[in-house]
Amino acid sequence: MNRNVITYILGYVMQIEAILMLVPCVTAICYGETEGLYYLGTAVFAFILGFLIKLKKPINFTFYLKEGCIITSLSWIVMSLIGCLPLMISGEIPNFTDALFETVSGFTTTGATILSDVESLSHCANMWRCFTHWIGGMGVLVFLLAVIPLSGGSHINIMKAESPGPSVGKLVPKVKQTARILYIIYLAMTVAQIILLLIGGMPLYDSLATSFATAGTGGFGIKNDSIAGYSSYIQWVTTIFMILFGVNFNAYYLIIYKHIKKALKMEEVRCYFLIIIFSTAIVFAGILDSSKNIADAVTKAAFQVASIITTTGFSTTDFDLWSGTCKTVIVMLMFIGACAGSTGGGIKVSRFIVLFKTLKKELTSYIHPKSIQKIKTEGKPIEHEVIRSINVYIVTFVLVFSCSVLLVSLENQDLITNFTAVAATINNIGPGLSLAGPSCNFGFFSVFTKYVLIFDMLAGRLELFPLLILFHPTVWKDMFKRVDKKNDTWNHSPRRVGGNS
Amino acid sequence: MNRNVITYILGYVMQIEAILMLVPCVTAICYGETEGLYYLGTAVFAFILGFLIKLKKPINFTFYLKEGCIITSLSWIVMSLIGCLPLMISGEIPNFTDALFETVSGFTTTGATILSDVESLSHCANMWRCFTHWIGGMGVLVFLLAVIPLSGGSHINIMKAESPGPSVGKLVPKVKQTARILYIIYLAMTVAQIILLLIGGMPLYDSLATSFATAGTGGFGIKNDSIAGYSSYIQWVTTIFMILFGVNFNAYYLIIYKHIKKALKMEEVRCYFLIIIFSTAIVFAGILDSSKNIADAVTKAAFQVASIITTTGFSTTDFDLWSGTCKTVIVMLMFIGACAGSTGGGIKVSRFIVLFKTLKKELTSYIHPKSIQKIKTEGKPIEHEVIRSINVYIVTFVLVFSCSVLLVSLENQDLITNFTAVAATINNIGPGLSLAGPSCNFGFFSVFTKYVLIFDMLAGRLELFPLLILFHPTVWKDMFKRVDKKNDTWNHSPRRVGGNS
Repeated sequence: MNRNVITYILGYVMQIEAILMLVPCVTAICYGETEGLYYLGTAVFAFILGFLIKLKKPINFTFYLKEGCIITSLSWIVMSLIGCLPLMISGEIPNFTDALFETVSGFTTTGATILSDVESLSHCANMWRCFTHWIGGMGVLVFLLAVIPLSGGSHINIMKAESPGPSVGKLVPKVKQTARILYIIYLAMTVAQIILLLIGGMPLYDSLATSFATAGTGGFGIKNDSIAGYSSYIQWVTTIFMILFGVNFNAYYLIIYKHIKKALKMEEVRCYFLIIIFSTAIVFAGILDSSKNIADAVTKAAFQVASIITTTGFSTTDFDLWSGTCKTVIVMLMFIGACAGSTGGGIKVSRFIVLFKTLKKELTSYIHPKSIQKIKTEGKPIEHEVIRSINVYIVTFVLVFSCSVLLVSLENQDLITNFTAVAATINNIGPGLSLAGPSCNFGFFSVFTKYVLIFDMLAGRLELFPLLILFHPTVWKDMFKRVDKKNDTWNHSPRRVGGNS
Repeated sequence: MNRNVITYILGYVMQIEAILMLVPCVTAICYGETEGLYYLGTAVFAFILGFLIKLKKPINFTFYLKEGCIITSLSWIVMSLIGCLPLMISGEIPNFTDALFETVSGFTTTGATILSDVESLSHCANMWRCFTHWIGGMGVLVFLLAVIPLSGGSHINIMKAESPGPSVGKLVPKVKQTARILYIIYLAMTVAQIILLLIGGMPLYDSLATSFATAGTGGFGIKNDSIAGYSSYIQWVTTIFMILFGVNFNAYYLIIYKHIKKALKMEEVRCYFLIIIFSTAIVFAGILDSSKNIADAVTKAAFQVASIITTTGFSTTDFDLWSGTCKTVIVMLMFIGACAGSTGGGIKVSRFIVLFKTLKKELTSYIHPKSIQKIKTEGKPIEHEVIRSINVYIVTFVLVFSCSVLLVSLENQDLITNFTAVAATINNIGPGLSLAGPSCNFGFFSVFTKYVLIFDMLAGRLELFPLLILFHPTVWKDMFKRVDKKNDTWNHSPRRVGGNS
């Protein structure tokens, strides 16, 4: 195993996080808050630590899928550990577990909070919370890919591990360039939202924080009532941008390069919009009676549906009070999630499309056992390996989900709380139902449960396997075993995934 | 498609059901109940109908997997339609939907009832309800296999469709003999339970009904409080027999032929017992405080765990009142289910074993991408096709389950009711939680919901695909299209599954 490259990249990650931490520092300056010093201090500490770690430059920059996964999961853990320091040291979230929960919830774009009163936080703390969503949405490693030099097919192994969705579609042959294009689209859309929110009369600070949280499909609010207090214009802008950030970014790439027809034909995106329209209609019908008027019902239904399917988790109403039908729709949307290749979480629409096609194929094989069929999407057959890995993903998801519910249930809360707390964290949504509902917070859970949920948030964001392999005993044996200097890289000729970068 | 053989076998099924209906007739004679006449009338009607249908003997007795599935699902539907007639005509369950629900619940060994007061039913009605469990437990078609002559590999295609579990293990090379051995074991164990219950002082009628419902892992009670009113000896006998009927019958076959070591090494059976012990321990700890004494807590915990994992659904206490932890364990057991090749329902322990192994294999493939691994059970590699079909099964289960919950949720009950009503029917258990809990019944659901749950019960018992293919349009096109007499059989050279019979 190429351990040097792992630590080297971790050093890089620390330094990038240090730089990104300047955002809350600037916020603190603007508002004259002394809490900013803790962010500055942590930034300096992280930068120096990263620098020291990077002193030992690896001889060889090549690595494989295993290292890609380990780098990714360790990076997210390290980022969260450093990111929670200022919250803890400043005393705004004095408890380490709580601060870590909040930060992991931020980076993984979950948006589940342990705070009952977010308005009492300093401006810089709230900005940092929302900004972690923005960083986590596209992934800090994807950002890194645009910057650092890696040899061979190594880039793709990080991208595979960090990007959401069943298959990594490189927009252009070079991973580095793909990463850059993704970040440019991401940045442009965020800026567009900020401008539209400002036009609606939202203060600059609120616009920035809300846009960061929307872009990453995170959901941390800076108000205790999330987005409910803002005008319906602002709610609609947020609704639309939540939906847009849940679209597969490939669609935007195609639009930019004027392949608009191709973008409109993307099966996943079409399905995604159909699900949104269909669910909004059901919820609308369900809440019409209890709403002020039709416009109010549409606004609330669309907002909540968009918030849950994109796994953002903002709220404009307490949907825990809705009828059984509406709540069932909400719980289902939690699992469906957004498109692959978006910033959203959940199982992803494309996986469900493939699942339904698999089912159809299976039934046909009962009727015509000899017929050879290929599952197709947009006219092209899907590789057997992709289908297999989607099946395995679902199965793993079910297992991890069940084990988590069992562990959380040891705390003896009601079933809905246990079930939706795990659903809301593993799908990176934020609020669940009952005690984990939108009007409540995760603060009351025991330390043990919080760690289970922290694990679920990371597992959900990294799509299970990169995190799970950290629990494979051989990884740690490899990590700590003594090796000759010469054999520093892992030379058992592993398969190299992906092409050139 | 060989339509003649389908109708011919359906005729057989009707005649067998007519004969089996003599059981409630005899009961009626013993208790001098006039309701018996309705059973006799229905039996005569079914026998004659079957006779008329069988007049058109098929030229060719060969058929394939497609026909096997269609025969199986149509048989179960026809059996339920005929079986519900006496309940309806006698006025004991006057509503057709309710009577059908009750009968499907009986044959599929679910045990969910729409009745609030089972004690008000006649003895013959209650005997028929419990006896449907016994018929459904092993499957009427498996019985048929022991009787009727079919050519080629046709037997196995019915057995594949009707038997629970991921793979059909023929005990002996001939399917006919396998079916006979299975029924002998089944009968012997039922008799053993009857005798042990009689020894415990249970009246003969109660012993027969309880044993039939236990053997089929059904769960219909003849008392309103299920088994709660009986002595703890009777509760323990029932607990042990529920567990025994949930064991893979191959184990008994091995024991009979003195391969005891081999039987003890069966991975699924070992796992099954481990899960029972582990779950009982958790539940025991959870209910100890609220129980009279340790013995009472152990009895209740073991009974409920056995009842749910084997998907029987008897109850000695209202577990809907238990703590969140215990209820979570119960819900999980609902999905795990019993062993493959038993009379129990659920997803089956063996499928979960393979899923965990698949997950382990997937993780290893991230670490050693080039290594070739086979998933093994009891030292032998599992065929790729079996693993694939298990994955597809889980995926299909998740889809059918979700769609059902969505449909049931339209009735606007609480989430727990919706979720567990579907879980309790698709896994063929009986009681769920909340409004579908052990102290309640399914009578209050709307007609639409009842049909969704009837579908789920059948889908669960037949393991999804045999029932789902009835919804494939080509099946009905084939069924009703005009064909030449000469081309009566389906000649597109379909694959024949299994060996000779």
